[in-house]
Amino acid sequence: MLLNDLREEVLNANLELVRRGVVVFTFGNVSGISREKGLVAIKPSGVPYEELTAEQIVVTDLDGRVVETNLRPSSDLPTHIELYKAFPNIGGVAHTHSEYGTAWAQARRPIPCLGTTHADYFHGPVPVTPDMTADEIAGEYEKATGEVIVRTFRDLDPDANPGVLVANHAPFTWGANAADAVHNAVILEYIARMATHTLSIDGGAKPVGRALHDKHFFRKHGPGAYYGQSKG
Amino acid sequence: MLLNDLREEVLNANLELVRRGVVVFTFGNVSGISREKGLVAIKPSGVPYEELTAEQIVVTDLDGRVVETNLRPSSDLPTHIELYKAFPNIGGVAHTHSEYGTAWAQARRPIPCLGTTHADYFHGPVPVTPDMTADEIAGEYEKATGEVIVRTFRDLDPDANPGVLVANHAPFTWGANAADAVHNAVILEYIARMATHTLSIDGGAKPVGRALHDKHFFRKHGPGAYYGQSKG
Amino acid sequence: MLLNDLREEVLNANLELVRRGVVVFTFGNVSGISREKGLVAIKPSGVPYEELTAEQIVVTDLDGRVVETNLRPSSDLPTHIELYKAFPNIGGVAHTHSEYGTAWAQARRPIPCLGTTHADYFHGPVPVTPDMTADEIAGEYEKATGEVIVRTFRDLDPDANPGVLVANHAPFTWGANAADAVHNAVILEYIARMATHTLSIDGGAKPVGRALHDKHFFRKHGPGAYYGQSKG
Amino acid sequence: MLLNDLREEVLNANLELVRRGVVVFTFGNVSGISREKGLVAIKPSGVPYEELTAEQIVVTDLDGRVVETNLRPSSDLPTHIELYKAFPNIGGVAHTHSEYGTAWAQARRPIPCLGTTHADYFHGPVPVTPDMTADEIAGEYEKATGEVIVRTFRDLDPDANPGVLVANHAPFTWGANAADAVHNAVILEYIARMATHTLSIDGGAKPVGRALHDKHFFRKHGPGAYYGQSKG
Repeated sequence: MLLNDLREEVLNANLELVRRGVVVFTFGNVSGISREKGLVAIKPSGVPYEELTAEQIVVTDLDGRVVETNLRPSSDLPTHIELYKAFPNIGGVAHTHSEYGTAWAQARRPIPCLGTTHADYFHGPVPVTPDMTADEIAGEYEKATGEVIVRTFRDLDPDANPGVLVANHAPFTWGANAADAVHNAVILEYIARMATHTLSIDGGAKPVGRALHDKHFFRKHGPGAYYGQSKG
Repeated sequence: MLLNDLREEVLNANLELVRRGVVVFTFGNVSGISREKGLVAIKPSGVPYEELTAEQIVVTDLDGRVVETNLRPSSDLPTHIELYKAFPNIGGVAHTHSEYGTAWAQARRPIPCLGTTHADYFHGPVPVTPDMTADEIAGEYEKATGEVIVRTFRDLDPDANPGVLVANHAPFTWGANAADAVHNAVILEYIARMATHTLSIDGGAKPVGRALHDKHFFRKHGPGAYYGQSKG
Repeated sequence: MLLNDLREEVLNANLELVRRGVVVFTFGNVSGISREKGLVAIKPSGVPYEELTAEQIVVTDLDGRVVETNLRPSSDLPTHIELYKAFPNIGGVAHTHSEYGTAWAQARRPIPCLGTTHADYFHGPVPVTPDMTADEIAGEYEKATGEVIVRTFRDLDPDANPGVLVANHAPFTWGANAADAVHNAVILEYIARMATHTLSIDGGAKPVGRALHDKHFFRKHGPGAYYGQSKG
Repeated sequence: MLLNDLREEVLNANLELVRRGVVVFTFGNVSGISREKGLVAIKPSGVPYEELTAEQIVVTDLDGRVVETNLRPSSDLPTHIELYKAFPNIGGVAHTHSEYGTAWAQARRPIPCLGTTHADYFHGPVPVTPDMTADEIAGEYEKATGEVIVRTFRDLDPDANPGVLVANHAPFTWGANAADAVHNAVILEYIARMATHTLSIDGGAKPVGRALHDKHFFRKHGPGAYYGQSKG
């Protein structure tokens, strides 16, 4: 079978969504890409997580044509593909309707960076897309969803802001691989929960200052990072 | 024993309520109907879920007369029967006092459609019934509860809006069968949670536009649906 | 050993507090009374639930003197005793610092009856005690806590309102026996959660009308009750 | 191996953070000190809790130099060390990004003492540090974090207030040993949750009076304590 390792990785990343409590029923999907082969592996549409096997992970090319496995891919595949095309460094994409992340998407408000937990992972607020037009919705809707995300990142670095809220819909996150995309999905949900509580305690709570934001982000990312065990 | 398959289905649907965390103690009940035989299978009244067996599921006719099993049916049976009589396509009914769904029923406010999670399942806000009159409450209360739900749906399609909030009481949901009714009970609770959080983040959050609402609803329902695996 | 059955019952009721998620660490305690023997069985003070055995349940007389088991009883014993003396029909008392019930106690606001879940169990709002005086606090504090609860019920029926919020402290509940007291503690927490959410959705939400309140309460209590299986 | 008992204690305290639900992923760390040997044992940086072993616990001196184990210590080690130096009676320190405690830190508001659960453990509000300056952030950030905590306690007794909220960051707690520090981390999260709910119910809720606050604190602490089993 093609891409056995990637299938396993994508299977595990999809199951991790369930273990971390960020999906109910069949909501949510994760994909991974082999940049070398130009192939994407993604969850099949509407299959319950408890029955999912590596063989059922659907492999497609970058035009969304199924290359192996005779199941339909997740209906959100065209969104994933747009992200892979526009963001060259990412290796995995995750989509959830996680409870608090989705609430922020429904409120159509970026999640402000209110503390260091957020600053550790996102080098700015979690952005929210503009509304999609009636034409975009009526046309190739899932592709257009990807396009509106990419437009939202015109002046943003996707590697330093690994996620977005699609307005009135829900979060998409990404990362170096499928597992990393899921990790960021869980982090996004966690900072969304804490931001909600923070505003409930003080509706006028202010974002962290730039110095603290940078300190925490660069403690974990880039050449000056000193968090975790040395990889060298 | 009569209707063994339906009993099993109704038993499992009742236990699914517990697994999904939408009931505490003996609150909540699920029924299924055999349209062919004109018989309803429903949870007995006040029996703890952990002791429930298929044999204890009570079978009644559409006048609420027990046909088999010498236990009392759930006291909400007359409500279920009104729904089966008025909504010809439904095969199952679920009633819970789930935490957030009940809070919306207590606030007597319809749950607005704030995002695509809601739009995937309900083709409009989740409606709330008007108050019942003192006479309705003093008389055949549970039957009147069914009647006030049916009146609420005078201009609504129960197949496109598979649930309701009974004012100051709690949600009722329905579907093609008992399992489907429970699925919708869990969805209703989930969208109720997210709607509560959304309003907490932004008290003035607006419902999704009609184009996005329709897109998501019809992606999953009707002849143009393309979500999930093809059933053909 | 004295009162083995009561000890077992009280042990199980204490462990049920943990299973139902209404206590953390050693917070909370449950007692039961043998009216015939004039003896109370209660959790020992500060013993972790996971180590608790029936032999460790402390038996005292109605003056609080330990009759058997050489452990200290829960420091709240004098509160329990005041309730047993003043409310002749109760057989068990439970005290928790459950999350939402305690929040209402801290807000010093009675929990209004906003729906039928509440009405099924409490025939009115869950009352809150007045503040205790500095003298009461400095003196026999736990006994005075019982006395202020009893005063709160001067014009209330404890059998129809099986619980109270002690101002700035937490809930006490009671019932026919220890298990029933715990059942009411779990219900109180559940209606406290839902009342909090209801007010978050609509700060001006109104209590249920008297007709609906009575209907639900008397559907479960007294000679006209028709919920559950016939006991006859 | 050095300090085997302390390593085991610190390992267990770190794992207790996970069991109590106050950390996600690798957030959070606990240390313990041997005052006699002048050595600190702390979680290594970025190692997942599920893989953590006693051998991996890093032992350092009070200048932060690793004495045993060739892993990097938690990047927050310099904060822990400042606390050990300034607070002579403490034997353990815990740091979490627990959900509600962090929300209060993000809101930069002290947690007011709204009830006896809080009064049982903290003899005042849970304090919040002032903002750190850009210089402190750019310099030895983690050491400066410890210093700003110590400054916050200039007029406060750390033994009677075993925790603090670092502004825009998260809580630190401490205690007689590592287990006790974690216990206080869980308590801080619990009172933070209840304070959030209390303010949601009544935005103008008032702190408990001094008499009640003292009564509860001294019921559990100091020579007049009478909670729990006698240690004598």
